[in-house]
Parts: sequence; C-alpha cells; structure tokens
Amino acid sequence: MKKLLILGVLLFGFISNAQNVLSPSKNILLTFSLEANGKPTYMVFYKDKPVVTRSNLGLVLKDGTDFTSSFTLENTVSNTFDETWQPVLGEQSSIKNHYNELKVELIQSTSKKKLNIIFKVYDEGIAFRYEFPKQPNLNYFIITDEKTEFNLTGNHKTFWIPGDFSSNEYIYEETLLSEIDTDKVNRNNGIAFQNIKERFRIQSPVQMKTSEGLYINIFEAAVVNYPVMHLDVDVSKYKFTSILAPNPLGDKAYLQAPAVTPWRTIMVSNDARDIVSSKMILNLNEPSKLDDTSWIKPMKYVGVWWEMHVGKSTWDYAGSQNAQTQNNNELVASGKHGATTENTKRYIDFAAKHGFDGVLVEGWNVGWEDWFGNWKEDVFDFTTPYPDFDLKAVNDYAKSKGIKMIMHHETSASVANYERHFDRAMNLMKQYGYSAVKTGYVGKIIPRGEYHDGQTMVNHFNYVVKRMADNKLMVNSHESSRPTGYHRTYPNYIAAEAARGTEFSAWSIGNPPMHETILPFTRLLGGPMDYTPGIFEIKMSAYDKTKKEQVHTTLAKQLALYVTMYSPLQMAADLPENYEKHLDAFQFIKDVPVDWQESKYLEAEPGDYLTVARKDKNSEKWFLGAITDENERNTEIKLDFLSPNKKYKAIIYQDGADADWQNNPKSYVIKTIQVTNKSKIKLHLAKGGGTAISFEPIN
Amino acid sequence: MKKLLILGVLLFGFISNAQNVLSPSKNILLTFSLEANGKPTYMVFYKDKPVVTRSNLGLVLKDGTDFTSSFTLENTVSNTFDETWQPVLGEQSSIKNHYNELKVELIQSTSKKKLNIIFKVYDEGIAFRYEFPKQPNLNYFIITDEKTEFNLTGNHKTFWIPGDFSSNEYIYEETLLSEIDTDKVNRNNGIAFQNIKERFRIQSPVQMKTSEGLYINIFEAAVVNYPVMHLDVDVSKYKFTSILAPNPLGDKAYLQAPAVTPWRTIMVSNDARDIVSSKMILNLNEPSKLDDTSWIKPMKYVGVWWEMHVGKSTWDYAGSQNAQTQNNNELVASGKHGATTENTKRYIDFAAKHGFDGVLVEGWNVGWEDWFGNWKEDVFDFTTPYPDFDLKAVNDYAKSKGIKMIMHHETSASVANYERHFDRAMNLMKQYGYSAVKTGYVGKIIPRGEYHDGQTMVNHFNYVVKRMADNKLMVNSHESSRPTGYHRTYPNYIAAEAARGTEFSAWSIGNPPMHETILPFTRLLGGPMDYTPGIFEIKMSAYDKTKKEQVHTTLAKQLALYVTMYSPLQMAADLPENYEKHLDAFQFIKDVPVDWQESKYLEAEPGDYLTVARKDKNSEKWFLGAITDENERNTEIKLDFLSPNKKYKAIIYQDGADADWQNNPKSYVIKTIQVTNKSKIKLHLAKGGGTAISFEPIN
Repeated sequence: MKKLLILGVLLFGFISNAQNVLSPSKNILLTFSLEANGKPTYMVFYKDKPVVTRSNLGLVLKDGTDFTSSFTLENTVSNTFDETWQPVLGEQSSIKNHYNELKVELIQSTSKKKLNIIFKVYDEGIAFRYEFPKQPNLNYFIITDEKTEFNLTGNHKTFWIPGDFSSNEYIYEETLLSEIDTDKVNRNNGIAFQNIKERFRIQSPVQMKTSEGLYINIFEAAVVNYPVMHLDVDVSKYKFTSILAPNPLGDKAYLQAPAVTPWRTIMVSNDARDIVSSKMILNLNEPSKLDDTSWIKPMKYVGVWWEMHVGKSTWDYAGSQNAQTQNNNELVASGKHGATTENTKRYIDFAAKHGFDGVLVEGWNVGWEDWFGNWKEDVFDFTTPYPDFDLKAVNDYAKSKGIKMIMHHETSASVANYERHFDRAMNLMKQYGYSAVKTGYVGKIIPRGEYHDGQTMVNHFNYVVKRMADNKLMVNSHESSRPTGYHRTYPNYIAAEAARGTEFSAWSIGNPPMHETILPFTRLLGGPMDYTPGIFEIKMSAYDKTKKEQVHTTLAKQLALYVTMYSPLQMAADLPENYEKHLDAFQFIKDVPVDWQESKYLEAEPGDYLTVARKDKNSEKWFLGAITDENERNTEIKLDFLSPNKKYKAIIYQDGADADWQNNPKSYVIKTIQVTNKSKIKLHLAKGGGTAISFEPIN
Repeated sequence: MKKLLILGVLLFGFISNAQNVLSPSKNILLTFSLEANGKPTYMVFYKDKPVVTRSNLGLVLKDGTDFTSSFTLENTVSNTFDETWQPVLGEQSSIKNHYNELKVELIQSTSKKKLNIIFKVYDEGIAFRYEFPKQPNLNYFIITDEKTEFNLTGNHKTFWIPGDFSSNEYIYEETLLSEIDTDKVNRNNGIAFQNIKERFRIQSPVQMKTSEGLYINIFEAAVVNYPVMHLDVDVSKYKFTSILAPNPLGDKAYLQAPAVTPWRTIMVSNDARDIVSSKMILNLNEPSKLDDTSWIKPMKYVGVWWEMHVGKSTWDYAGSQNAQTQNNNELVASGKHGATTENTKRYIDFAAKHGFDGVLVEGWNVGWEDWFGNWKEDVFDFTTPYPDFDLKAVNDYAKSKGIKMIMHHETSASVANYERHFDRAMNLMKQYGYSAVKTGYVGKIIPRGEYHDGQTMVNHFNYVVKRMADNKLMVNSHESSRPTGYHRTYPNYIAAEAARGTEFSAWSIGNPPMHETILPFTRLLGGPMDYTPGIFEIKMSAYDKTKKEQVHTTLAKQLALYVTMYSPLQMAADLPENYEKHLDAFQFIKDVPVDWQESKYLEAEPGDYLTVARKDKNSEKWFLGAITDENERNTEIKLDFLSPNKKYKAIIYQDGADADWQNNPKSYVIKTIQVTNKSKIKLHLAKGGGTAISFEPIN
C-alpha cells in the first residue's frame, strides 16, 4: 500500500488535490485528481502497475454546459462498505459486497453548477458514476455526450464485438487492440438489422489481456434511465472513449436532478477467474425493490421453438411470412404451423415426463405472416391466438400435468404497439396462469429513429420488468439491450438473450466453438443469458440433406453449457424426438439444477476454456461443466470443492475419444465413478468439446 | 357545360388523355391530364373561370420512386354517387352526399409501379386523393414528399395561420396571398411551443377570396394514418405546394399497399355561405364504424377550468408548478387548488340547478407541480387523485344530482406515457361512470422528435378515439391535430380544440373580434370545436386590477357563439358566480340546444360577420346567432326559415346601444317580441358584438 501511495504522490505530486482509494485487499489503487485547468481525471493501478493511465472524465450538456473542465473540488466523502446479501436466484446463495468509496463533489466556478463523481473500489476492480445533485442551477437537462476515457497501457489482446446501437448478436473478435476495425467483421452473419456505423467503435463489456497476463474488463452497471455505453477506440493511443446510444435527435439522455449515470466499471486481475466469477456488476445495482419474491422461481423448460429454426415448422399459420395482409379471416393454413394445440400438448407431455417446469410456445398468436423486416407498427396484439391454438385447452392441459406455460411476446420491435397492448397482454397471462414471458424485439425500433440501446428503450425494457413484477410475472427478454445487473433490483428479470445465441447455428455461419468461452467474460457479467443449449441433433443436414449449417459443438459440450452458462432459466432447446434418441445423455439435463448455493470457477481463460463447479441450492449435489474452444484440451481437476468426509457418485458425460465438433460431434461416453474431495479427475475435451459431471453424495 | 368542355378542349387540346368531371350542378369542372412527359396534372374551373390552373400532382417515395412523372394512363373509372345519411350528432339531422367521381389508374413504364388518383366533384368543390393499389412492385413504402400543387389565379385575399407542425393555436392573419410571411406574425402571443420554421409556410384550411368575389378554400379530409398537410407558398407565383409534417427522421408516412392518402379539397363558390355550410369534408370520410351509437350524447357542461385561467385557483395542489419533485408525499397544499371535492360539488350543484349535462374538472390528479415546458416523460398517471379530490365522493354526488363528470387527461404531450397508462386510465373512467374525456397535449411530443401533426400523432389521436369507442366513451381532444371529419367515422369524437380558443384571452393578447368570424371557414370545417364560449366577466381586471387582458367580445356575442360555433359539446365556461350576476342573459345558454335538425347560414363573410339559424333536433324551436368583427354592423334578417303558419315568441339578446367590446362589453338588452316566418328583424351588432335569439312556437 505504501508503495502505491508513493507512486500516486510521484505521479500527482504537482497537483494538490489528488485523492486515493485502495481496494479492501489493497491490490487496486484508484486515484482521482483535478488537473490544473480543473479537468477531472482518474488512474487505476493493480499491484503497483498502471492499468488505466490518466484519463479524462466528464459530460457535455445540451444547454452548453461543459462538464469536462473548470471544476474546483468542494468536498470529498470517504466510506467503507461491507455487507452480505442473498439473491433470490443466483450462482451462490449469498453475495459479499465490499468496497471502499470516495465521493468527490465538484463545482464549476463559471456556471456554479455542481457535479459529483462517486468511485467504488472493489477487490476485483473499480467503478465510478457521475451524480448530478439537486441544485439551483440545474434541474431538467439533456446529455449530449459523455466523455469518459479509458487510457490503456499497451496493445492488449482484446475480445470485442462491433459497436451497433441496434444489436449485440455478434461473434466475438479476438485481436490486438490496435487491430480493432469493424470493417473486418464478417457482416454476412445472419443478422437482419445490423447497424455498424463506425470503423473504430466496439461494444462493452470488452475483455482484454495484457502481455504481462493481466486481465482487464471494461463494462457498466445499473443502466437505468440512461442509454447503453459503447466505446470509441483510438487504436494508436490504446484509448477508449464512451459513446452513448442517441435518440433520433442525437440527444443521449434526458434527466432531472438529482440524477446519476450508470456505473463505469474496470475489472482487473492477474487471475481470469476473479473476473468471470465477479459479482461486482450485480453489487453496483440497487437492492431488490420487491417485498415478496416467493413467486420468482428458477425454471427449466422446453418449447415449440427450435423446430422453427431448423425448418420443421413455421411461426406463422399461413405460410412463410409472405402474405400481404395479416387479416386472420383470409388466412389459409399451410399445414406447417408449429404452435398447434396438438403439438404443444406433445411438448407438455414430454416436459411432464422428464421433470421440466415449463413449456414455451412461439407463433401462437396472429400476425406472423407479414411483418419481418418491414418496420411495421401494428403487427401483433398479444392476445389473439391462431385458430389452431386453443389457449384455454393448452393451459388447462398444462395445469393438469403440473407444467407452467411460458408466454411469448414478439413485439416486432414495435414498442409503441406493444405498450399500447401491454395491459391487455398481461391480463391474458394472468387469466390463464402464465408465470413468465419471453419478449422479443426483432427489427428496427418503433418509435422510429430510436435504437435498442437508447435511453427510451432502456426505459422500456426496465418498464416491462417493473410492470410484470407488479403482476408477479417473470421476464426473459430477447433482442433487448444487454443486462447490467438490474436483476438484483428486479429479481423477476430472470434472463435475457442480448447476445448471439444458439439459434444462429441453425441458419447462419453460427457461433464458433470459442463463443461460449468468451460470453462468461462479457455478456454474462451483466446477467443470466437464455442461451438455449442442449442441442443433440447438431448438424442441420439431419433435417435437410442440402444444409451445411451446424452447431459448433460436441454433444457433451452441450451438457457442460448448463453449468458454464449460468441462468436460472434454462432451455432444453432440442426437439423431444432428438432427446428420446439419447436419453442417457439427456439424464444430465434432467438432473442439472438452475439455482445454486455455491459456484467455483476452477479454470478460466477467455476465449479458450472454462471449468466451473456448482453446488445445488437445495441439496448436497455438485455439478461440473468444462468447455473448450476449437482446440482439444486435457486437464486435471481437483475435486477439493466437494465436502470433506463424503463419498460421491460422479457421472461423467464426456466426449468420445473420436469426438470432434466438426466431424463427429455426437460421440460421447458416460461413465460412473466414485470420488471424494481428495480425488482428481483427468478430463479430455475434444475440439469444440466439453465435459459435464454430476456428483451425488452416496451416504 | 358545353362552354366548359370547349374550354377544356382548348386548354388541353394537345393532350390526348384529358379527363373531365363536372359537379352535379355543372358549375364546377375538374380536368385531369397527363402532360407529355407523363406528369399528372389537374385544373379546376368554376362557372367557366379557372380557379386552379394547371397544377402538378404526385409523391416521392423513400426507395427512390418518383411518382410525379413518367406515368401512362391505364384505365379510368367514372361514377356518380348520391346518398343521404344521418349523423349521430350534427348541424342537421340528415346530410346529402352527392358527387361525380373519376378514378384514373396510372402506371409508370419504368418502375412498373401503379398509382391511382381519385377525384370527387361536389357542388361546393372538388376533392382528390392518391391511392396505392395492391401490386407486385409496391408493398411497404415510405413517403418522403407529397408534391401536390395548387396554382391560383391571382393575388387573393387570404386568411392564414403560420405553418407549425406542433401547434394550430394562432391568430388568423388577413393579407394578400403575396403578403404571406410568417416573419410578420406576432410570436409573443402566449403559445409555449411555437415552432414556426419557414417564412412562407401556412396551415390548412386556408380561406381565400378573389378580387371577383369568389371564395376558395383549400383543406383536406379523412387524415388517417398520414401526416397533416401544410402548404408551402410561392408568394410571387400564387402557388401552394403540400408539405407534410415529418417524423424525426424526416420521413412523412409509412404505408403498406393497398393504401390511400387523405383527400385534398378545394371548395369554391361565389357565395361564402356555400363554404361555411358545406358538409363535403364530413362526406369524404368513411361512414360510422360504430354499430351502437345510442351512448353518444350531446353535452352542455360547466367546469373547474376558467377559474384557473383567470388566476383564482391553480391546477396543481402545492403551488404554481415550481416544485422539483412531484412526489405526492412531499406536497404541501397551497390552499389555491381548484379541483377540490368541495369546489367540484359547487359546480355540480350549479350544473344541476341550471340543467347542464356535465362537469369537467381539471387538475384533479397528481403531477401538475412539475412538468410544464420541461419535456418530461413520466408526469401523470391518470388515475391518482390529489388528496383533496375524492373521486368516489365526487362521482357519487354527481350521480345523485343527475350530472355526468367529464374526465380530464392532460398528457403533457408525453404520448408514450399516456399510452402506457391508457387502459388503466380508461378502466378508472368506466369504474366511476364517466362518459367523456377531455384530452390535452400541451408541450413537445414524446416520443421525442415527433410533431403533433405527424403520422405518429395522427394515429395516436385516432387510436384514442377508437379505443374510447370500444368502451363507449366520448372524446374531446385539446392540442390535437385539427379534425378533418373523422367524427363521421367515429361519432364519439364529439369535439376538439385544435385552434386558438377562448382561454388565450385570459392571459395573452387573446383573440381579436374577427377570430370567431373566420374559424367557421377554417377550423370548423373539419369538425366541432370546444371553443368554451360564455364568458360574462369579460375583463380580467375584475380578478386583478393590474390585469389588462380581456375577451375581445361583448356579452351578447358570447351568447351568439353558441349558435355560430357549432359543437355538440358546449361549455358555459365562466364561473358560476359570474352567471349568477346575469341570470337573464344566462337563460339563453340554458335554453340553447347543442344538437340540431337543420341549420341555415343566413349571412356570411369570412373575417367579417356570420349569421346562422338552427332548429333544435328535438323540438320546433329555432335559435339564431349573429356575430361581427371589430366593426359594428346593422342588418335585417328575414325569418323565412321559421315554419309557416306558426307564431313564435322571439327572445332577443342583443348588444346595448352603448355596447362596445373594448369600452362597454357587458352592456346588453333582452327583449321579447312575437314573430312569424314573414317577419324581418333588424339587428344592431356593436363593435365586437353579436345577437342571440331564441324562437319558441307559441301555439
């Protein structure tokens, strides 16, 4: 610590008002200072080494207020916080929230306007936000720019997706920081509404690794009433600058003092496991606003969904989205409609037989014939089923089998239309006893000119969660802006897509084998993802011999994903008939819980591999998932996470010796052994492969 | 007719495909032709004289389609239509709809795209619209410009308000066409959200008069799923060109074929009464979509409203819109809140005593402290009353007195927020038995970047009307886009403001005496206006000696407005205590109906004077209103509209001999005489004055 402080004094010696904050572990130092012209700046050090060199802070308001300089320091407030709280659902049953805090209260001599900056320093990183206190000279205001900078120390290895205010469904690029260039991104990757506008703009979270082996992650937390932050990259100076998603007028955020921005976060460690297991993002969000959370339940589900992706059936009733009218009276059934009463009952039977909680049905409601890609305002009404889907019969049948139906609201990104119908849509859910909804936002947003990542849409996504909570309904949002821990505040926000999910592998170049090894370092830091794993029929040629698409995985890896990709809502995405061909492997999906007492990240390297062990929330069982990228991998795992003095039956689901994601993905081996917490297990992961293990105490 | 046709042949002799349509009376000729380069054009003649010389037609689509030339004529369809229909509420109990129709079916040789133009020629004018038929090469499309031209024949006298996509609450200018210049408009006129952007842009309807005494009116009808049309003026060429209100992206309308635009209308007559009494705009709208209209009732009402305008009380509970929070818990009553339970009961008592149907209360719900002018999204929830307004008690009391409460939804122009709360707001109305709502849209629209006159907002206003109709609720919209006859289609759309109403006179330079003589030629052509007449305490100095504002009227003129300003929803806007001082004059307001069997426009000159007689829908009583502008006026009225062989008691409410809007506005005389349909009555109208007469059959 002394060394760090000396360093700080050396670097900021010429400035009188440098402020230092150390992490509880004293490994991380945050230094704030006002430069001579009153420019607020910060630095971050990890174990004596600079991680972020002096970087500017500030914002610009539409009224001309330049909140990037001319400040004087009015006051500072320091604080230490240490609590432990219990998430409703989670990777662990209790979460420690421990940090040192510094609030700097600034005032502009010229404008007499006040701006505070709040820093929190955790053991795994730092966070800061801007605060606009209540004050005479600032009431309503518009943010036109946020000028937060992140000056990095070198040409780090960087995992990034291109900046796009409309979509986060991209493959991760792995390049040097200096090589970031969205022109090089494969744009023919199945995304209908790509909107990459700048060559040197990326999304956050961004995961980096320095040549010295330091892992750095830049992200944000608690995006509430504010747009999503993307990052403009100066590839020669190794610098990121915040860029906020605009509204159609180019404005970024409409605020009224008192107000705060989201937290800007910089995680840093020389152990990648510290980042992938961090709960900092969650901790930076407000505690739950719900008094009663007894109705929020984890959920494993199947659904009428993958069969549309593989082309076995269609979402629409009349044919493939080519009708020039959606007038239901004129529709003639194509015979390929997936969401029929009969087909749904088949899924309900399957779910009940194998112990699932829920069944999702997409395409149940009128409107699918004529909207896709057309930026049409009035598409779905969220209440009128197709003639071959009997809402009441389906729900009655599900109830009789102990299964919960999951509602589906594809909004077609016509948010205006969705909000108009929202109360009626919710009332229908309550009438039939739905407990959760999957929302979708496919397309260009209406109100036109708004982006998925703008303040308007952030507010919409949060509004949906809040209104659903009012009615004790859970939300799983697809094509939303990516979560930033708001599920701490509204625990009914159980999952989101908001990244490139499994579906792409059915009809595009898909996701490369490394995809699932980087998501936990990026997208998953913000919250659970409805990634829809569990694909056993891996090659699309099984459905149509002319097809070359496939999931870039082995079957065993699909099992491991249930452990490595944390979500309290997990789908077994494949078709019942495909599971029935591999009931032995399917047993793992049946056994694996989705809510946990404890999680241990055993091995982690972004983009390469991940090994996680988790303990069931409600039993003494442990589950392990290990995945690799396109390279095969051998490793040995110590089972010291298991309870001492207990014997466990370990069922190991692993790649066959000849398994390979490309040539032989369905080769797997299941073996049962007995272990204790002294045991070690050797794992062999095929190319694109994985291992899943369940541990059940014997005594 | 022959002469007209010869003229047509002379003018279009060089073009093979000129198409002519005559009005049923044969006074009006519409000629359509394609010019040599396939440019669609039209001309209008009235009794042999050109009214609109050759003018271009067409639109431009965002996909690059230029629908202004390169057309060939594929087909024409002619038709004659003659029907009579019964409006639910109206100026007359049955309306004749008689016109000759021509549809020209055009195709572009290059794009193979089709465009139809439909012309209807009535006795009082012509109308046309663009139709996009269902076709292979045009499905979804975006209109970026409509290029409809109106080439006029001279430098006509013109009554106009400046182009402003956000507000129509302007004083009418009376200038030569060449003198139109929005730079000369008084902008300090009390409008908070003025948005005049172009010097030579005006709103429609625009009323003109040629030097030969021909009256010409340009407007539109049936604005549905399309923005409002304004007019760009070429002041040297006497030419108008359509300009549509854009969305934030500059797009004008999002359509899917088949689709139509609103009707563009040109009324023409040498008798101003033909225009002011025309039902053409209404006829151009679709028939009622409501099967049951028994719940749609005319309404005379009082309300807690004018007392806020005159400063006696406030809309908000805590003081005058200066709190930095609207958190209801923190509010401290100022003691000036108008919408209290007690005050409302006073209005209910007054309404019941004097035979009114309803009571409006503004400021009943939380949120008024902190929003005005701040473009704030979440302001009102439309369901939570202030602590001093007991929703149940008020409604129970009203019911016990036979009075209907009128709901008030000030949306603060945050339409996004209103639509989110709309179902709950409507449910509250149903719960307490409200039958009508007054909506308000004060401020800049949210979704931000949208205008009051854009397609999005047009659709919103129409959506509210439709949804309210679903629940048997009537709508009176304030600060909406101006009506264009849609109340034929949704007769529950009983009134709108959508022009500069009486309120401006309480706190601004107000409306000049000519205002009410031009509104019937402009704003009222589209539908009833909630003008809120009946102000007896005319000078604001009565409330505050320092005030110089006043209504620019005599008291007698205020009575006459109940006849000249047609609306099935009429307010007696002044305070009960002011009416109680003049119960003799108030008798006319009590007696005058708001729904009519028949209406006779006896005298009319835009901007100068108007005399109207109307027969009660449900009795043999007649009522007459005569108003003048700033000039005094003497006239003699033949009472030949009365039934023959009947004697009538005529109660005449007229300006006192010494009356004058400025110096002696409250001077009035009431006299009772006996008349028959052979009688004539001499009227003297003071400067800014008027006369109101009720005729009751004696036998």
